Amino acid sequence: MSKEEKPESMSLYPLGTAAAPEPELLCIFGTGDLGRSLGQRLLQSGYKVVYGSRRPHSCGPVPQGAQVMSHTAAAQSASVVFICIQREHYGFLEQLAPQLKRKVLVDVSNNLRKNLYPEANAEYLQRLTPEAYVVKAFNTLSAWALQNGPSDSNRQVYLCGNSTEAKEAVTEIATRLGFSVQDRGSLSAARELEDFPLQLFPLWRLPLRLAFGLTAFFFFYLLTRDVIYTYATQKKDISFRIMVSLANKVFPIVSLIMLALCYLPGVIAAVFQLYRGTKYRRFPDWLDRWMLCRKQLGLLALAFAFLHVLYTLIIPIRTVTVLCRTDCHFKMKENQTSELDTTIAWRSDSYYSMGILGFGLYVLLGITSLPSVSNALSWREFSFIQSKLGYLTLFFCTFHTYLYGWDMFLRSSYYKWYTPPGYMLSLLVPSVVLVLKLLLLLPCVDRSLTRIRQGWERTEPQDDSQKSLIT
Amino acid sequence: MSKEEKPESMSLYPLGTAAAPEPELLCIFGTGDLGRSLGQRLLQSGYKVVYGSRRPHSCGPVPQGAQVMSHTAAAQSASVVFICIQREHYGFLEQLAPQLKRKVLVDVSNNLRKNLYPEANAEYLQRLTPEAYVVKAFNTLSAWALQNGPSDSNRQVYLCGNSTEAKEAVTEIATRLGFSVQDRGSLSAARELEDFPLQLFPLWRLPLRLAFGLTAFFFFYLLTRDVIYTYATQKKDISFRIMVSLANKVFPIVSLIMLALCYLPGVIAAVFQLYRGTKYRRFPDWLDRWMLCRKQLGLLALAFAFLHVLYTLIIPIRTVTVLCRTDCHFKMKENQTSELDTTIAWRSDSYYSMGILGFGLYVLLGITSLPSVSNALSWREFSFIQSKLGYLTLFFCTFHTYLYGWDMFLRSSYYKWYTPPGYMLSLLVPSVVLVLKLLLLLPCVDRSLTRIRQGWERTEPQDDSQKSLIT
Amino acid sequence: MSKEEKPESMSLYPLGTAAAPEPELLCIFGTGDLGRSLGQRLLQSGYKVVYGSRRPHSCGPVPQGAQVMSHTAAAQSASVVFICIQREHYGFLEQLAPQLKRKVLVDVSNNLRKNLYPEANAEYLQRLTPEAYVVKAFNTLSAWALQNGPSDSNRQVYLCGNSTEAKEAVTEIATRLGFSVQDRGSLSAARELEDFPLQLFPLWRLPLRLAFGLTAFFFFYLLTRDVIYTYATQKKDISFRIMVSLANKVFPIVSLIMLALCYLPGVIAAVFQLYRGTKYRRFPDWLDRWMLCRKQLGLLALAFAFLHVLYTLIIPIRTVTVLCRTDCHFKMKENQTSELDTTIAWRSDSYYSMGILGFGLYVLLGITSLPSVSNALSWREFSFIQSKLGYLTLFFCTFHTYLYGWDMFLRSSYYKWYTPPGYMLSLLVPSVVLVLKLLLLLPCVDRSLTRIRQGWERTEPQDDSQKSLIT
Repeated sequence: MSKEEKPESMSLYPLGTAAAPEPELLCIFGTGDLGRSLGQRLLQSGYKVVYGSRRPHSCGPVPQGAQVMSHTAAAQSASVVFICIQREHYGFLEQLAPQLKRKVLVDVSNNLRKNLYPEANAEYLQRLTPEAYVVKAFNTLSAWALQNGPSDSNRQVYLCGNSTEAKEAVTEIATRLGFSVQDRGSLSAARELEDFPLQLFPLWRLPLRLAFGLTAFFFFYLLTRDVIYTYATQKKDISFRIMVSLANKVFPIVSLIMLALCYLPGVIAAVFQLYRGTKYRRFPDWLDRWMLCRKQLGLLALAFAFLHVLYTLIIPIRTVTVLCRTDCHFKMKENQTSELDTTIAWRSDSYYSMGILGFGLYVLLGITSLPSVSNALSWREFSFIQSKLGYLTLFFCTFHTYLYGWDMFLRSSYYKWYTPPGYMLSLLVPSVVLVLKLLLLLPCVDRSLTRIRQGWERTEPQDDSQKSLIT
Repeated sequence: MSKEEKPESMSLYPLGTAAAPEPELLCIFGTGDLGRSLGQRLLQSGYKVVYGSRRPHSCGPVPQGAQVMSHTAAAQSASVVFICIQREHYGFLEQLAPQLKRKVLVDVSNNLRKNLYPEANAEYLQRLTPEAYVVKAFNTLSAWALQNGPSDSNRQVYLCGNSTEAKEAVTEIATRLGFSVQDRGSLSAARELEDFPLQLFPLWRLPLRLAFGLTAFFFFYLLTRDVIYTYATQKKDISFRIMVSLANKVFPIVSLIMLALCYLPGVIAAVFQLYRGTKYRRFPDWLDRWMLCRKQLGLLALAFAFLHVLYTLIIPIRTVTVLCRTDCHFKMKENQTSELDTTIAWRSDSYYSMGILGFGLYVLLGITSLPSVSNALSWREFSFIQSKLGYLTLFFCTFHTYLYGWDMFLRSSYYKWYTPPGYMLSLLVPSVVLVLKLLLLLPCVDRSLTRIRQGWERTEPQDDSQKSLIT
Repeated sequence: MSKEEKPESMSLYPLGTAAAPEPELLCIFGTGDLGRSLGQRLLQSGYKVVYGSRRPHSCGPVPQGAQVMSHTAAAQSASVVFICIQREHYGFLEQLAPQLKRKVLVDVSNNLRKNLYPEANAEYLQRLTPEAYVVKAFNTLSAWALQNGPSDSNRQVYLCGNSTEAKEAVTEIATRLGFSVQDRGSLSAARELEDFPLQLFPLWRLPLRLAFGLTAFFFFYLLTRDVIYTYATQKKDISFRIMVSLANKVFPIVSLIMLALCYLPGVIAAVFQLYRGTKYRRFPDWLDRWMLCRKQLGLLALAFAFLHVLYTLIIPIRTVTVLCRTDCHFKMKENQTSELDTTIAWRSDSYYSMGILGFGLYVLLGITSLPSVSNALSWREFSFIQSKLGYLTLFFCTFHTYLYGWDMFLRSSYYKWYTPPGYMLSLLVPSVVLVLKLLLLLPCVDRSLTRIRQGWERTEPQDDSQKSLIT
C-alpha cells in the first residue's frame, strides 16, 4: 500500500530530502510592497529568496538575506516564481516565456473591482507564458497574513491550476508557511478566486436589504399607529416608547415574516414541480436566487428573534423601576384579568410557552447551520432538522403570535385610523406558508411530488423536455 | 488522468496539462435519474460525458451534450466509469470485467436499509471486476447536491478504495465539481460509507429516549402532585399551570439528572479499573455505549437548562401582568419573607448566583463541544474543560438545587400524598456522582488510579490477563 | 520536492495494489503502555504488527496477534517503525542506524515539560539515524485516542518530516485508523508539535490574568464602597448583596474595560505607524503580545457581558419575590420618577436599548470568531465585522454606561468616602479608545495612515530602515 515497501523505487528519490534539507530557492518578481512582505515571510520560513527586478541595482530595499538579479537570471535560478506585479505590467513576461518554460508561476494578484478585464489575471498570465505552469494562489489572504503568517480567517489558501504537480509544489510551500490549502481545480476557477477577496457578503445582500426594508416599513407603520395617533388624539407625547416598546413590536414582526420567507420558496418550488410534472426544468431565476439565500434569511430572522427575546425580558425591569409612569397601563391590565378565568390563564401561559419553545428550536436551527456542525451531519439529518424542525419552529412562532392576538381582531378599538395592528400583517405570510405546506402533505399530493422528485415525468410535456435534453 | 493507465506516458504528462487542458471524457453507466443528474453536473463542470446503456438507441433522455453508447464501447472510451446502477443489476458487469480492467470504477450506490446484503456494494463490485480499481464515493451526497453542486452539509465527499492512484483521480474530479474530499482508507470502509446516509442521529437515540422518558415520568409525577392533588383536595382547577409552572419544574429536573448521567459513567469506569487493578480489560458493553453518548447527554441537558432559564426569566412578566390572579400565592411569599433575614437573603441570592454561574459554565461546555472549537483545542485543554469545568458545572447546578430546597424537606406539608417533591428526586444522581468523584480524588485512591491508567497492573489478576494478551 | 522533476521513478509503482491488499506489516519499538495501546489499535484496523524488544522472550504482555522479535529483526521486517520509547533511551538506535536506513521512523514521543532538551525529540532521532526518514506524528493525541480511535478533539493528527513520501505513508496509516491528518511541514516543526500537548491555553493566560485582576480589584473597591460603607455609616449588614448586586456591578465593568482593551492595541499600533512613518519596523514586544491575544480578550469580555445580562434579567424575579425586603430601595425609586418626565423615560429606555443592541452585536462578534465561521469569511468580511461592527459594539456599550450614569457624577452623595462610583472608572479606557479612533478617522490622518499601510515610507527615517533591510 505505502510506497516504501518496494525499496527499489525509493532509490530514485533524492536522498538529499531525508536528513537536513538545504533551503530551497524561490524567486519573486517585483520588489513592491507585496513582494517585500512575501519575501520576508518566505525567508523566515527557511527558504532562500531571489528577487527579479528590471533594475537590479536600484530597486529599493529588499528584505535582509535576499538577492536581487535581473528577471532572466532570477527566473533561471529557481523553479517556482511568484509574480508580485500588477496585471497592467504583465506584458514583459511574454518575452521571458522561454526562461519561464516548465517553471511554476504563482499568480497572487487581485483586481480593484470585478469584471475589470475579460479574462482572469492568471489566465492572462498563462496565455503570455503558455509553457509555464501557472498556479493561482495566496490572493485571498490579506497583506497582513502574508507578512505575519496565518491567523483567524487567514489560514486557508485557495489555489487552482492546470498542472497537478505544480499545485503540489505550491501546496508544499503554503503548508510550510503554516497555511492550510484547498485545491479549487483547474485554472478556469481563477476568476472565482480573484473575485473572492472583493466580495462583501454577496449572499447576505438580498436578505439584509429585505430586513432593512421590512424594519423601516413596520417602524413607520407602528410609529404612526402608536406614537403619532396618541399625540393626535390625546395630545400626549409617548415618543420615548420608540426605544423599547416599538422596537419590541417591530423585531418580532420582521422575524416572523423573514422566517416564513425562508420556507416560502421551498413551497413555491414544489408547486412549480407539481404543475410542470417534472423536476428537470429550471426554476425561474428569481426563485433560484431566493432559494440560495434561505440560510441567510433564517439567520437574520434568528437575530431579530434574539433581540425580541431580550427586549421582552427587560419589560418587567422597566415596569418595576418606572412603576408609577406606567400606572394607567398597569391598572387597566389588572382590571382586565380580575376574573380568574382559566381560559385566559391557559391562553397567556400557552402564549409564553409557544414563544419559548419556538425560540429554542430557532436557536437549534441556528446552531446546526454553523459550518462545522452542518459538515458533521449527514444530509438526511441536516434536512430533518432544517425542514421538519424548521416547519415546527414556524408553527410555534405563528401560534405564539395568534395567541398574542387572540380576540383582539374583533374589537374595533384596535383598528386605529382603520389600520390593522402590526401583528396581524405579520401573520399573513406564515399562515399562507403553513396552509400550502399542509396541502402538500396531503397523501395524494405528496405521492405525486415524491415520484416527480425521484425522476418521474408526466407524459404530456415530455415531448418538449426530450427535445431539449437529447442531443 | 489517473497514473496507472499509462505508465509510459508519465514522462510526457506535464506538457499536456499545462496550457489549455482539453475536456476529459468520463463514462457513466446507467441513464436513470442519478446518472442524468450526475452527467449534467459533470458537463457543467467542463467534462465530456459518455453514457453506457443496454439499449443505446432507446434509453430515454440524457443531458444535452452527452453521448450514448453500448456498455463496452463506453467503458473503452474513458478511464473513469461511474456506476449509477442499482446493486441488483450489477451482475452484467462481470462479463464486462475485461473491458473494465485497470479502469477506475466509482461506486455511488446506496441501499434502502442497513445490512441488506452480506457485503458492501463496492466490495461486491470489486469482486465482480477484480482487476478494476473500485472507489466508493459521492454516495453520502444528496441527489440535490449531485445535480446542483455543493451546499451546506453537502460539501464533503467521503471516498475509499484500495488504489491510491484511483482515489487521486476521483479526488481530482470531486474537487473540480467544488466538493472537498476526505479519504476514508481502503475499500473495507465502504460499508461504513454506505451506512452513513441511512443514519439518523444514531448516537442521539439513547440520550433522546432517556430525555423523553425522564420528561414523561416527571411530567406525570408533578401533574399528580400539583394539579391533581390541588383539584382533589381543594376542588380548584389550576391546570393552566401545565404550560409554564410545571414545564419549569420538569425541565431543570431532567437537565440536572442528564448532566449527572453524563459524568456517572466516567466515575463507574474508574471504580471498575480500581477494582480490577488494570486498564487492559474491556468495560462491559453497556458502559461502553453509555460513555460514547456522553456528549449527546450533555448537549440535551444544556438544551433543557436553556429552556429552564427562559421559563424562569418570564416569571416576572407573568407575575406583573397577571398580578391579581396569583394574588394568594404572592401574598404568602410576602409574609414568608417579611422578616428581613440576612440568612434568607444570602440563601436566595446565592441560589440565583449559583444558577447563573452554572448556566454560564454549561454554555461554555456546549461551545467547546462544537466540532470546530474542539478541533482547535489540544486534548489537555479539552479534557480540562470537559472534566474539571464539567464537574464544577455539576457542582454549581446541584448546589443551586439544594439552595432551592433549603429546609423544605423538613416540612411535612411538602410531602403531598407521601411523595417527595420533584427536586429531591433530581438530587439523587448528582449527589451520588459528586460524592463518588470526591472519593476518587482522595490522595490514596487517586494515586492507584493514576498508576493503573499509566499501564501499571496489579499482580494478582495478571495471570489471567497475560493469558489473553500473549500469543 | 514536486514530482515532475523526476518522472522516471513514477513507472515503478506496482500495479498490484488494486484488488485485495494483504495486511501490511508495521513495526513498533517498545512494549510499554504506549506501544501496547498503539499496537492493539493497529491490529484492530487490519494491520499486522511486530514488536521490537531488547528481550524478545521476556518483554511482558503484547496484544494478541502481534509478534515479538529483536530490534534488528523487527526493523528489517517492516518499512515503517513506530518509536514508542522514551527519549532518554533513544541512544541504542544509533547502532541500529544501518538497519533503519530508508525506513520511515515515526516519532510519537512527548516530553514532560517544555525546553527540557536543546533539540526536539524527532530532530534528535533524525541525528541518530541520518539515513532514515523521520516523521513526527500522533504525539498530539491522548493515549485514550490511540487505544480507542478518534473522538472529539482527538480526530486531528499533526505530522511533520523532511520526506514527502514518508509523510504520505504515515498519512495513509493515520487515515486508515480514522484520523484526519494535517501536514505541518518539515522536521523543524517538530518542536512546535512536541510543545502542543503540553500547552494549556497559552494565549488565554494573559487575558485570564487580566480578567481576574480586574475582577478582584473592582470587587474589593465596590465591596468597600457599598457593603463596608453602609455598615460603617448605618450599621446595617447588607453583605448578602455580594452574590447578586455586587456581582452585577463588577461583571459589566470588567466586560467594558476588556472590550476596550481589545481595541486599544490597534489604535496604539496606528499611532506608532503614523509617528514612525513606516510599517516596516516591528512593534515593541509588549504590543505584539497584546495584539495576539485580542480575540481572547474579546471572548472573555463577551463571557462577562453574558453573565451581566443574566444577572440583570433576574433582578425583577428577586424584586417580586422579596418585595418587602427591598421596600426602602423601591420606594425611593418610585418617588424619584414620580414626575412623568419624557427625558427620563427616553434616557431609561435608550439605556436598555443600547445595552441590548450592544449585547446583540457582542454575540455576533463572538459567533464570527468561531473557527469554522471565520474560515468561511473572506478577510474583507472578517475585518468588516471585527473592526467596524466591533467599534460599533464598543460605542453602544460605552453609551449604555454613560446613560446609566447620566448626571450621577454631579451629585456628591455618590462619592462615598471620596471615591468615584465603579462605572465611572470603567468609562476611562473605552472613552480614550473611542476618541483616539475618531481622531484616526479624520480625513487627513486617515489618508497618511492608509498610504503607510500600503507600503509608503516617510523619507526622513528611511536611511535607518534601508540599512537594516538591504543586504
